[in-house]
Amino acid sequence: MRAVAPEAPSTLFASDNAAGVHPQVLAAVAAANVGHAMAYGADPWTDRATARFRELLGVDAEVLFTWGGTGANVVGLQCLLAPWQAVICAESAHIAVDECGAPERFTGCKLIDLPSADGKLRPEQVLEQLHGLGDQHHVQPRVVSITQSTELGTLYQPAEIAALADACHANGLLLHVDGARIANAVAALGSDLPSVVVETGVDVLTFGGTKNGLMYGEAVLFLRPGLAEHARFVRKQAAQLPSKMRYVAAQFEALLADDLWLRNAAHANAMARRLAEQATEVAGVGVVRSPEVNAVFVHLPRAAVEALTDWSFFWEWDAEADLFRWMCSFDTTEDDIDRFVRGVAEIVAAHR
Amino acid sequence: MRAVAPEAPSTLFASDNAAGVHPQVLAAVAAANVGHAMAYGADPWTDRATARFRELLGVDAEVLFTWGGTGANVVGLQCLLAPWQAVICAESAHIAVDECGAPERFTGCKLIDLPSADGKLRPEQVLEQLHGLGDQHHVQPRVVSITQSTELGTLYQPAEIAALADACHANGLLLHVDGARIANAVAALGSDLPSVVVETGVDVLTFGGTKNGLMYGEAVLFLRPGLAEHARFVRKQAAQLPSKMRYVAAQFEALLADDLWLRNAAHANAMARRLAEQATEVAGVGVVRSPEVNAVFVHLPRAAVEALTDWSFFWEWDAEADLFRWMCSFDTTEDDIDRFVRGVAEIVAAHR
Amino acid sequence: MRAVAPEAPSTLFASDNAAGVHPQVLAAVAAANVGHAMAYGADPWTDRATARFRELLGVDAEVLFTWGGTGANVVGLQCLLAPWQAVICAESAHIAVDECGAPERFTGCKLIDLPSADGKLRPEQVLEQLHGLGDQHHVQPRVVSITQSTELGTLYQPAEIAALADACHANGLLLHVDGARIANAVAALGSDLPSVVVETGVDVLTFGGTKNGLMYGEAVLFLRPGLAEHARFVRKQAAQLPSKMRYVAAQFEALLADDLWLRNAAHANAMARRLAEQATEVAGVGVVRSPEVNAVFVHLPRAAVEALTDWSFFWEWDAEADLFRWMCSFDTTEDDIDRFVRGVAEIVAAHR
Amino acid sequence: MRAVAPEAPSTLFASDNAAGVHPQVLAAVAAANVGHAMAYGADPWTDRATARFRELLGVDAEVLFTWGGTGANVVGLQCLLAPWQAVICAESAHIAVDECGAPERFTGCKLIDLPSADGKLRPEQVLEQLHGLGDQHHVQPRVVSITQSTELGTLYQPAEIAALADACHANGLLLHVDGARIANAVAALGSDLPSVVVETGVDVLTFGGTKNGLMYGEAVLFLRPGLAEHARFVRKQAAQLPSKMRYVAAQFEALLADDLWLRNAAHANAMARRLAEQATEVAGVGVVRSPEVNAVFVHLPRAAVEALTDWSFFWEWDAEADLFRWMCSFDTTEDDIDRFVRGVAEIVAAHR
Repeated sequence: MRAVAPEAPSTLFASDNAAGVHPQVLAAVAAANVGHAMAYGADPWTDRATARFRELLGVDAEVLFTWGGTGANVVGLQCLLAPWQAVICAESAHIAVDECGAPERFTGCKLIDLPSADGKLRPEQVLEQLHGLGDQHHVQPRVVSITQSTELGTLYQPAEIAALADACHANGLLLHVDGARIANAVAALGSDLPSVVVETGVDVLTFGGTKNGLMYGEAVLFLRPGLAEHARFVRKQAAQLPSKMRYVAAQFEALLADDLWLRNAAHANAMARRLAEQATEVAGVGVVRSPEVNAVFVHLPRAAVEALTDWSFFWEWDAEADLFRWMCSFDTTEDDIDRFVRGVAEIVAAHR
Repeated sequence: MRAVAPEAPSTLFASDNAAGVHPQVLAAVAAANVGHAMAYGADPWTDRATARFRELLGVDAEVLFTWGGTGANVVGLQCLLAPWQAVICAESAHIAVDECGAPERFTGCKLIDLPSADGKLRPEQVLEQLHGLGDQHHVQPRVVSITQSTELGTLYQPAEIAALADACHANGLLLHVDGARIANAVAALGSDLPSVVVETGVDVLTFGGTKNGLMYGEAVLFLRPGLAEHARFVRKQAAQLPSKMRYVAAQFEALLADDLWLRNAAHANAMARRLAEQATEVAGVGVVRSPEVNAVFVHLPRAAVEALTDWSFFWEWDAEADLFRWMCSFDTTEDDIDRFVRGVAEIVAAHR
Repeated sequence: MRAVAPEAPSTLFASDNAAGVHPQVLAAVAAANVGHAMAYGADPWTDRATARFRELLGVDAEVLFTWGGTGANVVGLQCLLAPWQAVICAESAHIAVDECGAPERFTGCKLIDLPSADGKLRPEQVLEQLHGLGDQHHVQPRVVSITQSTELGTLYQPAEIAALADACHANGLLLHVDGARIANAVAALGSDLPSVVVETGVDVLTFGGTKNGLMYGEAVLFLRPGLAEHARFVRKQAAQLPSKMRYVAAQFEALLADDLWLRNAAHANAMARRLAEQATEVAGVGVVRSPEVNAVFVHLPRAAVEALTDWSFFWEWDAEADLFRWMCSFDTTEDDIDRFVRGVAEIVAAHR
Repeated sequence: MRAVAPEAPSTLFASDNAAGVHPQVLAAVAAANVGHAMAYGADPWTDRATARFRELLGVDAEVLFTWGGTGANVVGLQCLLAPWQAVICAESAHIAVDECGAPERFTGCKLIDLPSADGKLRPEQVLEQLHGLGDQHHVQPRVVSITQSTELGTLYQPAEIAALADACHANGLLLHVDGARIANAVAALGSDLPSVVVETGVDVLTFGGTKNGLMYGEAVLFLRPGLAEHARFVRKQAAQLPSKMRYVAAQFEALLADDLWLRNAAHANAMARRLAEQATEVAGVGVVRSPEVNAVFVHLPRAAVEALTDWSFFWEWDAEADLFRWMCSFDTTEDDIDRFVRGVAEIVAAHR
């Protein structure tokens, strides 16, 4: 098979967390490596990155850095929940399927995961889950958690987020956004962070860095006063407090400077559109929908799959549906795409 | 005050996690930043670092990298414990006092923390806790956790570890070593890793990197077959699975190459001895014991403390005893020490 | 409204746990009140009740008494699970909707609740959930939990249970049966306990007493060797170890003597059939299906509901579907039913 | 051995939970067995028992019944705690040593257990544990839990409880009282419930029934407004919500009527005094202190212990100290004591 296909672009479309570190981010890490700095966030890098987040948001948010995305979700959720409460999410949510039960384990709470063809929740779905409020036999929904952009590569419009936030707040619930790819969402909307998460009424946002060019590090942003009162204890108990914090903060400082976060994301989104456009032309490949962010979902002929993934690994999304995911990253090049589509076309053709 | 003292060496003696990243480690991180690599450890850096650990240990250990030290302890312990069991440790143990209850929270287990003037446990202390074995009303001791070197800067001799391991194994218990500073211990003993943790019978070791020149990253080493069977699920559920794992593994690869881990630690230990020797000469400063590793514990006159810590911050260890801790690091220089001791002497003199 | 209806039979059809205690059970409690007996199960009543359970089952099961049904489920499940594992159940399962998250909270595990129109799981549904086995990002299904008879008043045939057990065991899973109403099921099947839970391959059964004439008390029956090794610690840590155990055991001894458990259940089942038959004749009342056990599900005209439940309280099962549940108990009389149906008919007629 | 001793009074001095049910309590259970009653506390018995508790306390406490003592402690503590907080207690506390880790497991919190020769905590001990308040690395003490009367058979004077409550409230902590034997304490003090737990400032009391003549059932009394806001969810999630609640409530109604709770306890206390007085006369038996409540602690000659406990079982309290515990109950008779002491004397004499 490898004979017919061009030189393999390796695992370039496997995931945005298979990408490396953006050079400016790596440079910031190196620049932070001067002398000693107090651990656990009592350092100027953390102060500056925190201030930069507040500036970006336009509100005096509480900003807590964590190691990774699961940790950020766990810390953010735990700050909002007592163990007899529950989280409403889509059944495709990362917290529901990809975190090995960490949210249930750490919060003690049930996740009420609702079906959604496009990975998005609607206010009506939330309201239908509230019939047991006040009944001691039932867990009490307290948080709605959505992912922006979703695991299925779709986007909430700000008005949709606002409608969910309104439904939450009218019923004593809070809205959490898993923003592992919030940058891709904001870039795709051509919007800004306040319009997407502040003015819409989001309570807590986990702001992803790792999938957008960082080495490691995520941020939990508490957008409403009072929610983070005990967050530092929660983070430490969750083993999510980096000791040499300056290296996390320095990365975020670089990412948030000069809109690098938006430029990285916009590039990945653009590459996904290019990939989808080219793939649409390939016989035997069915692009599911025009990509809204940096994920391209495609149907592929089963006979070609092994050869394809041997040549350049990517993930099967739904085995029964022969559905696969190609992810673009901040560092995907036009040449990567051209070579990849050419190889896919050849391999698929060879297996028809 | 600042007038009388020399230029402050900042927070150089606050902690070994206030130190930066060793240049070779940082270079390895930069070198790893090439192209894409599969996430979560399916990459060649992880394979190489794992192999290097096994080579160092001389046994086919299971090696799991985690984000930080609390996370490593939590993951290692959880693999050994059911929630109705208990961990026996010294009352000064990091897991007992410095992890905000993360071990209890994540394992569900009680920590039975025993008094120890030097931070070390003895087999007799362990045996005294076993009277309730088999009684359903009492938590069942299952793990003894010791710290090598200890939080009090003391050292277990290999024979002492072996005696603890024997006491454990004779009674159905397992021995866990929190090795946040295992490098300092091995260096101080003039020994090697197999002699200290393999031949002595340790079951699980958390091997610290962060306090010895890494940016982040610790390793959990399962030294006996069967203990790590489910460890990957435990690590993911504990939110301790780094996604861009290659950057953790690359750091360890650098640290373990050419004995950098031992050289870093030996240097920090030597600097602590120098610091203690000089400090012994300062009137008003009482060095508690000759340092075995990289910590120097000193009694200081209460009247001078505020001025001293304003000048160059370090931590109070025991307020009632006027006891303080000065830590040396891989990057402490002889000049740092000379300036520091000179400053301490001047400030203490000024406050007599 | 009360004027037109006959004297209200109070809350006689609200639930089988609104019923009192069977006179023979109460007599056994009184008879057990002689002198002192060692606490926590070291008493002859516990020995005898345990022996009687083993005799009934025909296998040397481990028998643990607990306070209540939620506690029994929690203890049974916890003995089978590590926290990164998962339980597959129907979305109507008591453990999923009526225990305020106790199973998730205590086991740490996710409940994967699957849709089922009749409250029963099928092997195919279980098999569809196994695609993530071995993947560290996903919780690992380990237990299938079914309810016999189900919360919807339906029954598993023994062959259906055996098929589920086979599907479980072929894939390394275990089968748990929530038998809060196992007596109603065995009676309805005209079968015996070994045929329903032993020969079918069930691993753990929670055997309900409270809904079948006990004051309190449930039993967790571990039907396979090795599963209960640590169960006593689990029960105590779950706060489910009755101290004056003889009063629990004495109740079970009475219930299991002379097939009282089956006679109670058969009576309740027969009363449900009578109630359904009579209700079918009432204009405006829609009996959902011929009752298999002691629950009758009916559609009622919304306009009559308030008057009906004011007159003789019963629970709404599904507000959107105008669906309600009438439960019969060991002490329901034919006269209760006749009066109740007469009253329902009059009230419904008055609200048409 | 049995030849020399009088007819054995069986296990009459093993524990107050080896005693049976007081006849008035059993009669109340039987009397409650009339018709149907709504489950989970929506019944008149629960209303009346709750009202009676409020009357006894003189404040509008929230009253929640639970199955057992461990469950009551777990529910009461969980209502007061977030998982990164901690409970300060004596190292002999039931929650620390006799509940198989249930408090840690369910609350997620660390128990900080302090040494105490008499089982009582002092305000100074509490204050010494507060140095880490506000530091994210340390669990945050939030609750002080004392036992009244203590596991060592000692008593807090009301002024001592008030001093602890003051120390708590001045530092943002709450005071929990494990009152498994609160009746014995109130009777021994010749006082009343408000003087001991309300006027002293206790926040939450678990009021024991089982050791004072009930079959089962304990009550959690929330003495300050706001503490029980979510307690019903906590209780259900802890599997501590009895379904046929009327039988718990009826028992408490009987216990609280005509001061039966105090009369039972006063009798047990008086029997302990009689037992201690007689035992003091026996050569070889060393009564540790004059009993304040219903426990007598004695030193016994090691050589006689097996014969003694074979003859009439009682518990070893501290093997190293040859210390044993004899408990009196509501149903201990003067004749029981006379025969027991006679037997002890004979057996001890035979083993000298």
